[in-house]
Amino acid sequence: MPAVLGASKPSDWAPLDPENTLYVELASGRVVIALAPAFAPNHVANVKALARQGYFDGAAVLRSQENYVVQWGDPHGDDEAKAKPFGNAKKSLDAELDRASKDLPFTPLADGDVYAPEVGFSTGFPAARDAKTGRAWLTHCYAMVGAGRGNTADSGSGAELYVVIGHSPRHLDKNVTLLGRVVKGMELLTTLPRGTGPLGFYEQESQFVPLRSVRVAADVPAAEREALEVLRTDTPTFADLVDSRRTRREDWFLNKSGKIELCNVPLPVRRQG
Amino acid sequence: MPAVLGASKPSDWAPLDPENTLYVELASGRVVIALAPAFAPNHVANVKALARQGYFDGAAVLRSQENYVVQWGDPHGDDEAKAKPFGNAKKSLDAELDRASKDLPFTPLADGDVYAPEVGFSTGFPAARDAKTGRAWLTHCYAMVGAGRGNTADSGSGAELYVVIGHSPRHLDKNVTLLGRVVKGMELLTTLPRGTGPLGFYEQESQFVPLRSVRVAADVPAAEREALEVLRTDTPTFADLVDSRRTRREDWFLNKSGKIELCNVPLPVRRQG
Repeated sequence: MPAVLGASKPSDWAPLDPENTLYVELASGRVVIALAPAFAPNHVANVKALARQGYFDGAAVLRSQENYVVQWGDPHGDDEAKAKPFGNAKKSLDAELDRASKDLPFTPLADGDVYAPEVGFSTGFPAARDAKTGRAWLTHCYAMVGAGRGNTADSGSGAELYVVIGHSPRHLDKNVTLLGRVVKGMELLTTLPRGTGPLGFYEQESQFVPLRSVRVAADVPAAEREALEVLRTDTPTFADLVDSRRTRREDWFLNKSGKIELCNVPLPVRRQG
Repeated sequence: MPAVLGASKPSDWAPLDPENTLYVELASGRVVIALAPAFAPNHVANVKALARQGYFDGAAVLRSQENYVVQWGDPHGDDEAKAKPFGNAKKSLDAELDRASKDLPFTPLADGDVYAPEVGFSTGFPAARDAKTGRAWLTHCYAMVGAGRGNTADSGSGAELYVVIGHSPRHLDKNVTLLGRVVKGMELLTTLPRGTGPLGFYEQESQFVPLRSVRVAADVPAAEREALEVLRTDTPTFADLVDSRRTRREDWFLNKSGKIELCNVPLPVRRQG
């Protein structure tokens, strides 16, 4: 991997778009989320609206479920008297589970998949598509971020966000709106103590892990931003990278699998310049 | 899942065999490992020999790599003067990467796989086999335990053990000896701080997480044992369970995938009786 990335050209990398990047500030550090407006435009707009009016200041990680997800939101979200106001953001949105694949950039992965007819990468995210239906969707790989919802398809809003921390729960694909990916700081979330309540919810308020703030990167002074760039998934360098992971070149490997599964493909991130 | 398990018969469950169960004692609690002698008889015997002569008392978690593995061993293993003696255990063993599939119980999973021609479950573990070669092997799903090795196939011994903590790195299949699975206490390992050195190794000795002891359950007084049993993977109840996860019955699911990937199949463990 270092050899392939070392041979990359500057144009193989794309800086994060500050207008579509979130900074989640924990006491332990910053989690950086690249948003996916190509797949979830309404949820991305709503999360940004919530962030911009300070909805998440005072929010907390409420759930940490082993081999599944970490989730945050308003600790008093279910209590009408204490719940944070949504202001100009929407309280519920139609789920954005998939979209038309026409005109969507898509780099297919040739290795097959258990869950979808075709998988690959689109706008920097792991994704799937179905030629028969003409639809495409994001996939629940490790580090993907989704909008929690209740029992109905229109009961999510982005006010409760979860991050996949374990083996990729692909059965959630097309069941919840995915809207981005953690590109830095996963370890701040995965190492949080697990909740002992049902579904990994913390049982005591004292266990909640406060979010200092959630900000859109564009609103943060330039000097305080993360100068990160991601490897473009539509480049020959990315194709080389996939192949080097599919058939490992290191002597250590005794049996080179010759195949790679979607969520095992690395999506490199580096400091700019 | 609760409905399927609630309808199970006592005979659907198998108690852990104390002779093939390890207790890893950390300050934070006990990690229980079910060993896989059907797949790695020599490594299992060696790890038990090491445990029985106190090799791991004073060992420590030395590595915690995000979305990959947690690994423990002798902190001074590379220093001949300080390294713990192996006693009657072997310092190196031929890797046990696969075995004959003939006469091996195997419950196939019908959903396909990216890495192997056939996957399923054998003696309680996720596994794969190839009808063409007549071989079977354990697979690197979340919670599987393997024996770290150096560059040659015979450089492992079980003195360094790793546990898969993230998305299942199936490209390691048939590259390292897998010898068991954590059936209790995963969260004690997955929440350890990540190492900041290469490959997630801790850089300071003060960061090492000591192992109080590693014991074979059979050597532990009965009153101090974990009375755990695992759902047998060769029962109709297990088949029902797989199907209930393949096509989720809960109303919450809007799109039931109708497929399940090997490492997403739960392998239930419960307190006996």
